[in-house]
Amino acid sequence: MSRRLPVIGILGGGQLARMLALAAAPLGVRCSVVDGSADACAGQLAPLRVADWRDLASLEQFAAAVDVVTFDFENVPAATAEWLRQRVPVHPSPEALAVAQDRISEKMLFRAIGLDTPAFAAVSTRSELDAAVARIGVPSILKTRRLGYDGKGQFRLRSATDVDAAWAALGAQATPHGLVLEAFVPFTRELSVLAVRGRDGEFRTWPLTQNWHHQGILALSCAPATVAPELAALALHKAQALAEKLDYVGVFALELFEHAGHLLGNEMAPRVHNSGHWTIEGAVTSQFENHVRAVLGLPLGATTLRAPSVMFNWIDALPEPVTGALALSDVHWHDYGKDPRPGRKVGHATIACADSVQLLARAQALAQALGREPQLAPALPVLHAGAAPRG
Amino acid sequence: MSRRLPVIGILGGGQLARMLALAAAPLGVRCSVVDGSADACAGQLAPLRVADWRDLASLEQFAAAVDVVTFDFENVPAATAEWLRQRVPVHPSPEALAVAQDRISEKMLFRAIGLDTPAFAAVSTRSELDAAVARIGVPSILKTRRLGYDGKGQFRLRSATDVDAAWAALGAQATPHGLVLEAFVPFTRELSVLAVRGRDGEFRTWPLTQNWHHQGILALSCAPATVAPELAALALHKAQALAEKLDYVGVFALELFEHAGHLLGNEMAPRVHNSGHWTIEGAVTSQFENHVRAVLGLPLGATTLRAPSVMFNWIDALPEPVTGALALSDVHWHDYGKDPRPGRKVGHATIACADSVQLLARAQALAQALGREPQLAPALPVLHAGAAPRG
Repeated sequence: MSRRLPVIGILGGGQLARMLALAAAPLGVRCSVVDGSADACAGQLAPLRVADWRDLASLEQFAAAVDVVTFDFENVPAATAEWLRQRVPVHPSPEALAVAQDRISEKMLFRAIGLDTPAFAAVSTRSELDAAVARIGVPSILKTRRLGYDGKGQFRLRSATDVDAAWAALGAQATPHGLVLEAFVPFTRELSVLAVRGRDGEFRTWPLTQNWHHQGILALSCAPATVAPELAALALHKAQALAEKLDYVGVFALELFEHAGHLLGNEMAPRVHNSGHWTIEGAVTSQFENHVRAVLGLPLGATTLRAPSVMFNWIDALPEPVTGALALSDVHWHDYGKDPRPGRKVGHATIACADSVQLLARAQALAQALGREPQLAPALPVLHAGAAPRG
Repeated sequence: MSRRLPVIGILGGGQLARMLALAAAPLGVRCSVVDGSADACAGQLAPLRVADWRDLASLEQFAAAVDVVTFDFENVPAATAEWLRQRVPVHPSPEALAVAQDRISEKMLFRAIGLDTPAFAAVSTRSELDAAVARIGVPSILKTRRLGYDGKGQFRLRSATDVDAAWAALGAQATPHGLVLEAFVPFTRELSVLAVRGRDGEFRTWPLTQNWHHQGILALSCAPATVAPELAALALHKAQALAEKLDYVGVFALELFEHAGHLLGNEMAPRVHNSGHWTIEGAVTSQFENHVRAVLGLPLGATTLRAPSVMFNWIDALPEPVTGALALSDVHWHDYGKDPRPGRKVGHATIACADSVQLLARAQALAQALGREPQLAPALPVLHAGAAPRG
């Protein structure tokens, strides 16, 4: 007579899996996590199996105990995802994962749906790099074609004389997977579309998000982004085209550059995304809950705004004093329960506030309480504009 | 170098402990649960120790592994709470727990803070029951003095001829703990004050909640309750007086009857409370998060309204079809992951909606989708009044 609760298997046990588990519980859904590390932070909330992605004996047991498999981490080998699909539904599909894992197929897909990208060239030898720099020019960025995230595996060329240093940094990774040289776009804004598509093709997007990075890692997001309505509509439309082309199931993020009133595709993340963390408090349904609903084939929840939001990302270690942040109204604290480590995402804080004047004031108060004014500074013009009286 | 996360020990592993664990995680706080049942639903999200409240060897290990102890269930023996306090901080205190466990000391406390109660009389023999009925009259309710909740241990006397039946039902429990006969109040409304007090005495209340019961169990709550402002202020004031009298730490609920423009104290629950579940989506900080903050000595979060809310309680089994509910906007589903059982609280759903007209429409749509119109019906006059254009 015991109810059997549905179980979502998650490859990767970081903060995304942790927040998926928190969103799954109220739906009566359990999560089960596989990660290579015994202290993966999702293991604080869900059973954790410690295994390598290639440990098929462990994955066999894992697959047998779950109803559907999804990802906290997009760099799971596509072969692993494909092998799992022989045993249990996998969402998003191994094909979608494979496209997102390869910067060149990703850009080809963007172009196939009519979304421009920065100029790029595949590079697998030193002479190809010279030719690519000659064609694309500088500034440009040499990147590993695969397995890059958070600015890892990237080298920025500021002048043609940086070619030697770029090759020294990344040349060893030119085979077998290759590199890609991308033109650096002097963008006006970095935007992301958070979107979700259900098993039945139902598609929804959250309001557009504007992002600011620091050293290749997301530092701050504001939603909704204040872009021209026709540009916002175009961004959402491209996300839908992308999802349909991939027959995508689940949440994904499409990262865009806005440049001279024009949108360029940067990359897609085939999973819940850091720039969508604000949806936990700022939207009717969070990206995490809608990913759970999508992969299980449940109806999607409304993605409408509850309140304009600002998200601060915490990298390396949590800022101090935490009590200073908790004492502020409308600050929602998210500690991932991780040990500090350089470059590691250890938490975030979201301020969600219906009143734009208060949103600005609270963001400033939070930055000040934690000594993080520089982290907020790049977003202040946008927040000030949002808080200005409408003409 | 590893961070040690604070751990809250919870006596009782039901849905309240489960929702405390969900609220604790984003604060970087872990929970550890003790319950007599191996399938206590909080065990899906936190380590669960299966033990009886009187198993001191287990409780000794439990106490050694937690930073503070709190409760999911108020009927933990006060002796257990007192024994734990010799080893680890316990919030709320064993004294507060003891008062709330005894209907007579609870009523004496209400009167001590100037809060009237229905007429009552202690009863421990059949002749005392006769005398009490003669003095208090009918309708009245005979209740066990201790260990009652959700209408358990109660017998309603509609006429003086019901005395035999009442004694037959509850007489066996008259010793050693006793019974109490309470006048039945023909109340206009049942209200509850949800409040929280920090270790430093900081005190906050959420907007007043109106409740409707069915067969002694909460069926529906609406917040904020639309009572006269001076009555609302009085209710919050009495809650504060109560908290200060008990030097209370944590969240509690004060249940009130409104009768002829006057407030009567019904009972207090020394824990997070079913009538405060709407605060998860409807308030800036939920009752669960603020309880975690309070017992750990962290600053309290804002208890202000985010959106007017209606909460449906699900008893016995979840209503069907769940997908019909999930397809509706602004419906937040809470499945406790329990097996169905008569009289058991297995879940709830909250509709939080800034617009009162939409709130009414969505509540009706949810009731209709699940065949629960009768559950909503008693609250419709209140929701219609809230949705009416302001004069």
